[in-house]
Amino acid sequence: MLTALLLRYQLAGWMLLLMIAGFSEGGKLVVVPMDGSHWLSMRQVVENLSQRGHEVVVVVPQVNWQLGITGNYTLKTYPVSYTKEDMDVSLQTYVDAHLKGQPFPFNVLSIHNSSVAIFNLIFSNCKNLFNHKELMQYLIQSDFDALLTDPISLCGALIANYFSLPSVFFMRGLPCNLHYKANQCPDPLSYVPRIFTMNSDYMTFAQRLKNVLVDSVEFLYCNSFYAQGLSFASEVLQRDVTLLDLLSSTSIWLMRYDFVFEYPRPVMPNMVFIGGINCGARKALHEEFESIVNASGEHGFVVFSLGSMVSEIPMKKAKQIAEAFGTIPQTVLWRYTGEAPPNLANNTKLIKWLPQNDLLAHPKARAFITHGGSHGIYEGICNGVPMVLMPLFGDQMDNAKRIESRGAGVTLNVLEMTSKDLSDALNAVINDKSYKENIMHLSALHLDRPIHPLDLAVYWVEFVMRHKGAPHLRPAAHDLNWIQYHSLDVIAFLLAVVLVTAFISLKCCLSCCRKCFCKKGRVSKSSKSKAE
Amino acid sequence: MLTALLLRYQLAGWMLLLMIAGFSEGGKLVVVPMDGSHWLSMRQVVENLSQRGHEVVVVVPQVNWQLGITGNYTLKTYPVSYTKEDMDVSLQTYVDAHLKGQPFPFNVLSIHNSSVAIFNLIFSNCKNLFNHKELMQYLIQSDFDALLTDPISLCGALIANYFSLPSVFFMRGLPCNLHYKANQCPDPLSYVPRIFTMNSDYMTFAQRLKNVLVDSVEFLYCNSFYAQGLSFASEVLQRDVTLLDLLSSTSIWLMRYDFVFEYPRPVMPNMVFIGGINCGARKALHEEFESIVNASGEHGFVVFSLGSMVSEIPMKKAKQIAEAFGTIPQTVLWRYTGEAPPNLANNTKLIKWLPQNDLLAHPKARAFITHGGSHGIYEGICNGVPMVLMPLFGDQMDNAKRIESRGAGVTLNVLEMTSKDLSDALNAVINDKSYKENIMHLSALHLDRPIHPLDLAVYWVEFVMRHKGAPHLRPAAHDLNWIQYHSLDVIAFLLAVVLVTAFISLKCCLSCCRKCFCKKGRVSKSSKSKAE
Repeated sequence: MLTALLLRYQLAGWMLLLMIAGFSEGGKLVVVPMDGSHWLSMRQVVENLSQRGHEVVVVVPQVNWQLGITGNYTLKTYPVSYTKEDMDVSLQTYVDAHLKGQPFPFNVLSIHNSSVAIFNLIFSNCKNLFNHKELMQYLIQSDFDALLTDPISLCGALIANYFSLPSVFFMRGLPCNLHYKANQCPDPLSYVPRIFTMNSDYMTFAQRLKNVLVDSVEFLYCNSFYAQGLSFASEVLQRDVTLLDLLSSTSIWLMRYDFVFEYPRPVMPNMVFIGGINCGARKALHEEFESIVNASGEHGFVVFSLGSMVSEIPMKKAKQIAEAFGTIPQTVLWRYTGEAPPNLANNTKLIKWLPQNDLLAHPKARAFITHGGSHGIYEGICNGVPMVLMPLFGDQMDNAKRIESRGAGVTLNVLEMTSKDLSDALNAVINDKSYKENIMHLSALHLDRPIHPLDLAVYWVEFVMRHKGAPHLRPAAHDLNWIQYHSLDVIAFLLAVVLVTAFISLKCCLSCCRKCFCKKGRVSKSSKSKAE
Repeated sequence: MLTALLLRYQLAGWMLLLMIAGFSEGGKLVVVPMDGSHWLSMRQVVENLSQRGHEVVVVVPQVNWQLGITGNYTLKTYPVSYTKEDMDVSLQTYVDAHLKGQPFPFNVLSIHNSSVAIFNLIFSNCKNLFNHKELMQYLIQSDFDALLTDPISLCGALIANYFSLPSVFFMRGLPCNLHYKANQCPDPLSYVPRIFTMNSDYMTFAQRLKNVLVDSVEFLYCNSFYAQGLSFASEVLQRDVTLLDLLSSTSIWLMRYDFVFEYPRPVMPNMVFIGGINCGARKALHEEFESIVNASGEHGFVVFSLGSMVSEIPMKKAKQIAEAFGTIPQTVLWRYTGEAPPNLANNTKLIKWLPQNDLLAHPKARAFITHGGSHGIYEGICNGVPMVLMPLFGDQMDNAKRIESRGAGVTLNVLEMTSKDLSDALNAVINDKSYKENIMHLSALHLDRPIHPLDLAVYWVEFVMRHKGAPHLRPAAHDLNWIQYHSLDVIAFLLAVVLVTAFISLKCCLSCCRKCFCKKGRVSKSSKSKAE
C-alpha cells in the first residue's frame, strides 16, 4: 500500500506540473534564503521554479555553509564582514552550550548567549547586503514579482518591506511562535505546546502551567535574539518596527508541517502545509552502500546521523555509542567525520556522507537514529522507519517528543544516556512491533495527500507572483488593536450598561421603598396620634 | 486568462481523477443528504464516488423535493408521516414570513416559528427512518466504511454516532456557527461576523457590539430549532446529548467556502474548503436559449433567478420588477413559473427553467440578479458576472453583504425596493466598470487553485473511507472542558500564588515594621526613663 501511495503522489506531482506548465508565464522571483539545513528543502522549490521558466535570483552572502552551491538559478553574492571560521566557531559554541551539561542556570545562559551570537552574525550579513550599493541597485531595477524567504533571519522580510514586494515565507518555525502571532492565528495555550517545553498536546495541569509560564516569558529571549535585527530594520525603514510588523505583511506562509507529526491546532487560510517536502523518491544506492546493505543479512541495518550541521561528537560519547552498536545484530551506518572510537564493533561502518533518504527507503532499514531535525524526521516518516531520537538543540527536543508521543520512536537524553539505554532503545524500536506499526500508520496518512508538498509550494509561490500577493487571504484582524481584537471595549461597554442599569434600578427601588415606608411611617404616626 | 484558468482546473480535475483511479479500491459509503438546494452540489460528489467504483447507498425519505432522482447509486427510501403538501406549506410559510414585511417583533416571531416548523418536519423523517426496522437492519448489516451527510438535519450525524461510523460533513454552514464550535475552531467576534448580522469583517464599534450580542443570544434560537432533534437523539443514543456532542465526532468538514467570498478567519486542519464545487464547465446552450442570447445584440442579457426553491413572487412585486426590466436595453431571462405580470416589456422572457451556469458563462451575460444563495453566487463568481442581489432568507442576506463588500454587486431589500432602485442597480453593475473588474478579479483568484473542489471533496471522502477516519486531524481540545480550554484553572492558580505571595510578603513587612517600631518604642521609652 505504501509503495502504491508513493507512486501515486509522484505521479500526481508530475501530472500537475505537466499540466500547469502549459499555462505558466515566466515571472521574476528574488530569493533570500537561510543557511544550513534550512536551505535543503527550500532549494528544491527554487530549482523547480527555475525549471518552470521563472527568472530566479538567489541573494546570498559570500561567506556561507551551503548557500554557495550554484544551481539552475542566478546567484548574486555580496561580501560580508565575517569569515567562515567565525561562523564555525559560532555554531560550535551553540552546539557545545547544549552538550556540555552545565548546571542550571549556566546552561540556559550559555544557550541564550550563543543563540544571540548566531542571530547577530546573521543580521550583520543583512547590514552588509544593504550596504552593497551595486546589488541594491540591481534589486531595485529588477522589478521582481515576489520574494521568497526563510523569515528566521528577518533579512528577507526586511527587503520585502523595503521594496514593497509581495512575499512568501518558507519555514519550519520561528522562535516564540512568531509565525502564529504575526499571522493573527489563535494559539490556545491549553493544548498547543510551546517550543522548548517538550509538552505534547495532552497536558497535565503542571504541563499547562509550564506552557502558560513559558509563553509569558518567551518574548524576553525573542527580544534579545532579534534586538540587533530590529534596530537595523527600524533604521532602514525609518520608523520603529516590531517583529510582528515586519513579519505580518507576507502573503503566504509555506510551513514544513504535517499533522501526522504536528499536533492539530487552529491555522489560518494563508498557511500552506508542506511537511515532508524534502522526501524524495528512492534512488538506487551507490555500489559502496549497496554492498554494505546487502551484507547486512536478515537483521538489516540501522542508519545513524546527527544531521548536516553536526558530524562529530566528543570521544567519550562516541565510545558509549560504539559500545551500544556492538550489542545489536544489525549493521550500523554511522555518518561521522571525527576520529573513530577505538571500541568500534565490526557491524558499525563510519561514513563521511550518507544517502539518508535512499537508505531509509531500503526495505532492510530497521531503525533510524537521528538528532530529531525536521528533515530527518520527515524522511523517517515517509519511509516508515521507527526512530531513536537524540535531540541536541533548537526544536529537536520538541520534534522528538512528537514522534515519541505517537509511539513511533524512543527519545534519549544525549547527555545522560548510557550505552545500555541506547542498546535498549534500539532493541525496542527494532523488535517491538508496535513501533513499526505506528510509524507505518503515520507514513500511510502522511503520504495520502492530493498533491505532493513540493508542487504545492511551487504552486503558491507562483500564485503570489501571478496575483502580486494574496490579499483575499489576509484577515481583518491585522487592522485591529489588542483591545478591539479581544472585544474588550465591547465587554467594558456592556458591563458599564449593566452596572448603570443596576445602579439606576437600585436607586429607583430604594426611592420607591423610601416613599412607601415614609408614607407608612406618616400613616402610622398619624393613626398613632389619632389613637392618642 | 479566465478561460485558461478554467481549462486548467478542468484538466487538473481530470488528470487527478485519472491518476487516482488506478489506485482506488471500492469502498462502501452511506449518504444521508438534506433536501432542497443543499443536495445540488452534494449529488455531484455522490455521483463521482459511484463512478469511481464505490458502493454508494443514499438513504432518503419517500416524500421529498429533489432527493428522489435516481442516479448512479443505490437509493434506499423509507415512508414518512407527512405529505409533499405539508412540505410545500411549511416552506411557503417560511418564505412568506420573510416577504410579508410584518413589523418587529412579529416578523422575528414568524421567522422563528416557521423555522422551528421546518426543523421539526426534518426530524420527524429521522424518527421514521429509525422506526423502519428493515432499513435499519440493512444499514447494520452493510458494514459501511464511512457516512457522508449534510449535518444541518442532524440525522446523518445521529446515524454515524449510532453505528460508530467515521463520517464526513458536507455543508455550507450551520446555525449559530455550530460548525466552528463543534470543531473547536476559534471564532473571534471582533472580525468574524455572525450570521444574520449582515456585518462584514471590518466592523464599527456598534457592529462589533451587535456581533457580540447576537453571539450571546443565538443559542436560544438554536436550542428551539434543534429541541426535537436533540430529544430524539438522546432517546436513540440512550444518553443526554448536546448539539456539540453529536457534531464533534466527525472526521472531515467539507465546507462550501472560498476566501474570495468568505472573510478570512481561523480554521482547523480537518476543514476542507470546496466553495465553487457546483460550477460546472460551460455546456452548449439549447437552441431556444441560443437564439434569445444571440438576439440580445451588443447590449447582451441579464439572468434573473430566485433559486431552485422560489419560483413565484407576489404579483405586486412581479409588476415592479417587470417595470424595471423595461427600462434597460439588455434582454432579461427571468426564471418564473407564476402568472406573467401584465406590464412585461418585450425585452423580458419568462422561462420555467434556466441553464443558469451555461447562461452566466456566455460572453454576452452582463448581470446576474440572484437571491444570494451560495450556489448561484459561486456561479456568478466562477463566470465573472456582476450581481444584483435580492436576498430572501437564511444566509442570503449575509452572502449578499459579502459580494457587496467586495464591490462586485449591489444589494436590494426586496421588501422595500422600488422599480427605480432595481433599474439603477442594474445600470450600475452593467455600466460601472468597477463591478465587472472586481468580479473578474474575484473570479481569477477563485479559479486559481491547485485542485478543483469536486476532486478535493471526492479525495477526502475516500481518505476517510481508506483510513476509517482522520484521527490525526482531531485537536486535543475536544478532551478539555471549558475551564481547561481557556486555561482558567492555570490563571486562577497563578493569581492565587501571586495573592498568597503578596499577602505573606505584606505580613512579613508589617511584622518587621512592627518589630522595628516596637524596638524603637522600647528604646525611646527606656532612654526616656533613663533620662528621667
